Amino acid sequence: MPLGKRTDCGDAKYAGLDVPFACDIVETLENALLCGFDFVMAPLVHPRYRRPAPTALPRGTFQPPFTRSDLLLSSPQWAGQVVGKASPWIDCDSPSPALARDSAAALQQELAWAAHLSLQAVVLTPLPQPLNGANYARILNQVLGGLTSMALWLRIPASTSSGADSTDPTAAEGEPAAAAAAAAGGRARLAGDPWEWWNQLRFLCHHNNRLGVVLELGADLPSAEDLQRWRGEPLKAVVLPTSIFMTNKRGYPTLSKRHQEFLADCFRRGVQVVLSGNAHHSLPEAAPASNAVAAGPGGAVVPVAAPQNPLRLYWEYLSFLFRKIEATSEQEVVEMGYRDYLQSPLQPLQDNLESQTYETFERDSTKYTTYEEAVYRCLLDRVPQEEAEQRVTVLMVVGAGRGPLVAASLRASLRAKRRIRVYAVEKNPNAVVTLQNRVVSDGWEGTVRIVPADMREWDAPEQADILVSELLGSFGDNELSPECLDGAQRFLKPDGVSIPQAYTSYLQPITSHKLWNDVRAYDDVEHFETAYVVKLFKFHPLAPTQEVFTFEHPNRVERIDNTRSIRLEFECTPPGGTVCHGFAGYFDAQLYRDVHLSIHPPTHTPNMFSWFPIYFPLRTPFYVPQGARMEVHMWRCEGKHKVWYEWAVTQPLASPIHNPGGRSYFVGL
Amino acid sequence: MPLGKRTDCGDAKYAGLDVPFACDIVETLENALLCGFDFVMAPLVHPRYRRPAPTALPRGTFQPPFTRSDLLLSSPQWAGQVVGKASPWIDCDSPSPALARDSAAALQQELAWAAHLSLQAVVLTPLPQPLNGANYARILNQVLGGLTSMALWLRIPASTSSGADSTDPTAAEGEPAAAAAAAAGGRARLAGDPWEWWNQLRFLCHHNNRLGVVLELGADLPSAEDLQRWRGEPLKAVVLPTSIFMTNKRGYPTLSKRHQEFLADCFRRGVQVVLSGNAHHSLPEAAPASNAVAAGPGGAVVPVAAPQNPLRLYWEYLSFLFRKIEATSEQEVVEMGYRDYLQSPLQPLQDNLESQTYETFERDSTKYTTYEEAVYRCLLDRVPQEEAEQRVTVLMVVGAGRGPLVAASLRASLRAKRRIRVYAVEKNPNAVVTLQNRVVSDGWEGTVRIVPADMREWDAPEQADILVSELLGSFGDNELSPECLDGAQRFLKPDGVSIPQAYTSYLQPITSHKLWNDVRAYDDVEHFETAYVVKLFKFHPLAPTQEVFTFEHPNRVERIDNTRSIRLEFECTPPGGTVCHGFAGYFDAQLYRDVHLSIHPPTHTPNMFSWFPIYFPLRTPFYVPQGARMEVHMWRCEGKHKVWYEWAVTQPLASPIHNPGGRSYFVGL
Repeated sequence: MPLGKRTDCGDAKYAGLDVPFACDIVETLENALLCGFDFVMAPLVHPRYRRPAPTALPRGTFQPPFTRSDLLLSSPQWAGQVVGKASPWIDCDSPSPALARDSAAALQQELAWAAHLSLQAVVLTPLPQPLNGANYARILNQVLGGLTSMALWLRIPASTSSGADSTDPTAAEGEPAAAAAAAAGGRARLAGDPWEWWNQLRFLCHHNNRLGVVLELGADLPSAEDLQRWRGEPLKAVVLPTSIFMTNKRGYPTLSKRHQEFLADCFRRGVQVVLSGNAHHSLPEAAPASNAVAAGPGGAVVPVAAPQNPLRLYWEYLSFLFRKIEATSEQEVVEMGYRDYLQSPLQPLQDNLESQTYETFERDSTKYTTYEEAVYRCLLDRVPQEEAEQRVTVLMVVGAGRGPLVAASLRASLRAKRRIRVYAVEKNPNAVVTLQNRVVSDGWEGTVRIVPADMREWDAPEQADILVSELLGSFGDNELSPECLDGAQRFLKPDGVSIPQAYTSYLQPITSHKLWNDVRAYDDVEHFETAYVVKLFKFHPLAPTQEVFTFEHPNRVERIDNTRSIRLEFECTPPGGTVCHGFAGYFDAQLYRDVHLSIHPPTHTPNMFSWFPIYFPLRTPFYVPQGARMEVHMWRCEGKHKVWYEWAVTQPLASPIHNPGGRSYFVGL
Repeated sequence: MPLGKRTDCGDAKYAGLDVPFACDIVETLENALLCGFDFVMAPLVHPRYRRPAPTALPRGTFQPPFTRSDLLLSSPQWAGQVVGKASPWIDCDSPSPALARDSAAALQQELAWAAHLSLQAVVLTPLPQPLNGANYARILNQVLGGLTSMALWLRIPASTSSGADSTDPTAAEGEPAAAAAAAAGGRARLAGDPWEWWNQLRFLCHHNNRLGVVLELGADLPSAEDLQRWRGEPLKAVVLPTSIFMTNKRGYPTLSKRHQEFLADCFRRGVQVVLSGNAHHSLPEAAPASNAVAAGPGGAVVPVAAPQNPLRLYWEYLSFLFRKIEATSEQEVVEMGYRDYLQSPLQPLQDNLESQTYETFERDSTKYTTYEEAVYRCLLDRVPQEEAEQRVTVLMVVGAGRGPLVAASLRASLRAKRRIRVYAVEKNPNAVVTLQNRVVSDGWEGTVRIVPADMREWDAPEQADILVSELLGSFGDNELSPECLDGAQRFLKPDGVSIPQAYTSYLQPITSHKLWNDVRAYDDVEHFETAYVVKLFKFHPLAPTQEVFTFEHPNRVERIDNTRSIRLEFECTPPGGTVCHGFAGYFDAQLYRDVHLSIHPPTHTPNMFSWFPIYFPLRTPFYVPQGARMEVHMWRCEGKHKVWYEWAVTQPLASPIHNPGGRSYFVGL
């Protein structure tokens, strides 16, 4: 049964039980389900059954089955309740040719069998020398090419020191990972970092999206920074050996604070938990009656059932941890559907927005409250108290849409007790209908004049004191706010104010296996040269953000130049190798003085959801050695009818320049 | 006029003259042609004319032309006799925004003008800080995307120390390259290596095949190994400043031995020569009459004309060097058309060869003489002199084609004075017609029996002493010789001999910009996962070859396994960074004892031309740091109906495994 009722953690609510043997798969599964687990991770073949590669048998010979019958469970049970484990003796890169050959044959046989059963996934163990696994990679890569639904998950220790803690029979039979790492000599550092094992396999299998990772935790967790490297990787499950559980005062299993935190993070990211090993705890003699509660770790209340199987205690503890994680905010629930979902940026200048798009934006009350505050302060600054009665401030909303900025400006005017005359300029004829209706319904007569025009061409009847606009994209200038406002500033008084006054974009390199694979799925160059608006979720930043381009308004120079070019240097911070799949972009806009709107993580406006970050992909993910310096170039280019970005990496290695001449992605003027 | 009459060096026979200014392009060109040169390398715009980026002009203003009129020369003259030079002041990455902007505008303007003139190429100078040229690269990359015929050539010094010797006005106006390299600090080593400048630009421009290199030589040449790195790159021309010429006893210009050798190598590879700078030599007063000859450098005979322009002396010296290079062998002339031309390997098992293919192969007399020698020695070894009269050796030619091996065997039998009975087994019914005719025409009756059958299925009437075959491909086993011979060995006597007895394949990483680009031109993954037979020409090996797979015949093991797997480690030898575009493959076959057939460079059978090397491409070229260790994996895989290779790199970085499951390239069984 699920660990808890909440539905906001995806599959994380289903916990699994790792079983070393499963001679009777029916009973094994039944017992696991009785304990509360939703699936078992079980060997596909008896883990000690090392068999020679199949040969042509003499006629009439009966070949015994290499594993149990598929009739023992129903198809939905195989598919939903069993994750297979490949045999632990398999070593396709063994120096012994016989073992290597038998291993290759057994691996192919087991994976074919698992696919026959329609298992969700098969868990693979790394080789004794994980960075010398090219044959292994070749077989997996061949198999991956033919898979339609089953996944392959590489099971690796979270760190090589914790690997020895494993209670999995693999660890017992195989060479301990740490020893293997030491044996690798010159590669000791790399070999000691399980992320490198995963990364080499992933590159050899060309980033196949059916290849995932299962992390086996030890009693000692790697540093938080080390663990965070997995945030951008396809981490499918974590394995918790029972041996790493501690015992609380009442004799119940419990995990260290750091383990709990990491687990909570995993749950929130939809990563499943799998328990492994034998029970080291049993229900104390003086157990409270079933359904009673007991003080759990840290004094928390743990529900206790009368377990028939001592592993039940662990499941209950996992359930306790799962239910304990803080509730997801309403906004997060709304955004959940957008996580890591690639959207093309809007082209509001070329296209007319739809009613529902306006509706979504208008729901962001934080944004309009912030605009209201900016207008409010600006009105107070411009009109002294003594002139409040007679002086009328001319305020023009350029790109008024269905009127939220008009309404915000009117609220600001009321609060400030300053009189305003509003022009609402809007080029979308459909939005103009709403505006015209609001003049009547919202009592805007006499104050608001609707102007159905493109702000770059409108012949304004008077000059404005304040120009209010919301033309920003996720990367600040990417929806052509600079070009629009430059066009509109001719009807701004010499001392007039633009709200926003300025905006700056920010960039940072990220790991995001999922986003990159989603871009690759389009199978063309164009999509690798396009920027996407996306609610980044399974990603990991490799360095702090850096400023990219800044625009200020009004821009009173003789010759306006909105092209930009920048070279950024990032010092990558992860404590080991990592991989870069592209760049995340953000903006911070100064609406008026110290009133800002920001989606830049360090200054993100709280509770504002109108903008997701932007993602600039790279055609080829590249390996970033520990502490590497990345040099990144970004350009904002301008043609007669379009504006576009180009981007490239020059350190540690040069990438192609993406999107030359805006061939794949541009914003039309 | 051409430097010489020979046509085997491509465009190298056309020499150019680099002119610093060309106020009167007509006269400049005329003078150059009079001196003997075939084209000039001339500025597109006056090299000192630094102009601001164009802006909208007030109405009625007359804008002066930024350069001379295109009417001065005819289109064929522009296209054939002028190579443009971009302005030397251009610095698109200048810290001065104004200079950077003006530079970008000027560069775009000049390249557009050059394309308008249909020039063959424009020569570009590197920036003051060549590894900080991302803006420059961006503009070139944009322009390259729109070019249909014109090329862009990056002019760089052969070494940074020789760069200072340049007589080009660029060097005078710009910061000297060596100083720039020093200024780059942490990148000093890279910055000091002009190959790195080229390589970064090439990667940023995504290996565009319209981007080439022009090397400017200095008085000091880099080491031979350093220069050889350019063999796999698109080296279009070398510039020879007049300042690096020495003076021989008679007062004529001459070059150092090393310069001469490098130049000869360039000529042979079709690389053009361009003279640069003012004449430092003039015809001695006591000059012999026109058309007389004088002793040139090293006592060689130099024709001397009475020059009107002192540069004529240099041209004559270049012509002398050109005519001096050794004649191309007949075989090289035949092979010239195949240089760097990708061919798909034959599939002789699946397809029947055509008559002309047989004819080409049969022309290779060396090959058949070697086979004859092998059979000859084998006959002598097997039949002692005293049994020569009565004992008849049964010799089967499997895959007899139109009979060259039958003929070679018969010649061997005659020479050895040993009697043979020959079975000529051939599955191609069309070749069988030839064989049957030869029985009559060549007097083979009674000795040769024609067997129209597949050797793997034929039911032989007796067992063979010797099995002769020529089933080898460029990579040894790649045309399924192992599978065919394994199938045929059942009719070989227990002590019978297979000719060949064994064969081994070899591999080495190479630089080959051209081959990689030719593969890329297909624009799909399949072609990157295919091996090609190709007469390697513009390539450079990065490390000595290493053995890959060996097969021995007969193969009397219980269970034949022709799959193979190998991990190779190459220590890359170039004295600086380089780039790997894939691998060259070769074979060495032991026909009998020490009689070998080989296309493996260290042991290549002289004058044999039946096989070109094989090329295994990589999907992405990768940078190889100086002295890097490359780890390469290669597999020979077998399915029910096919055999294929897979290959991958795991060091310094992991590549995808190429051709998983033989999805792109395989040989049908």
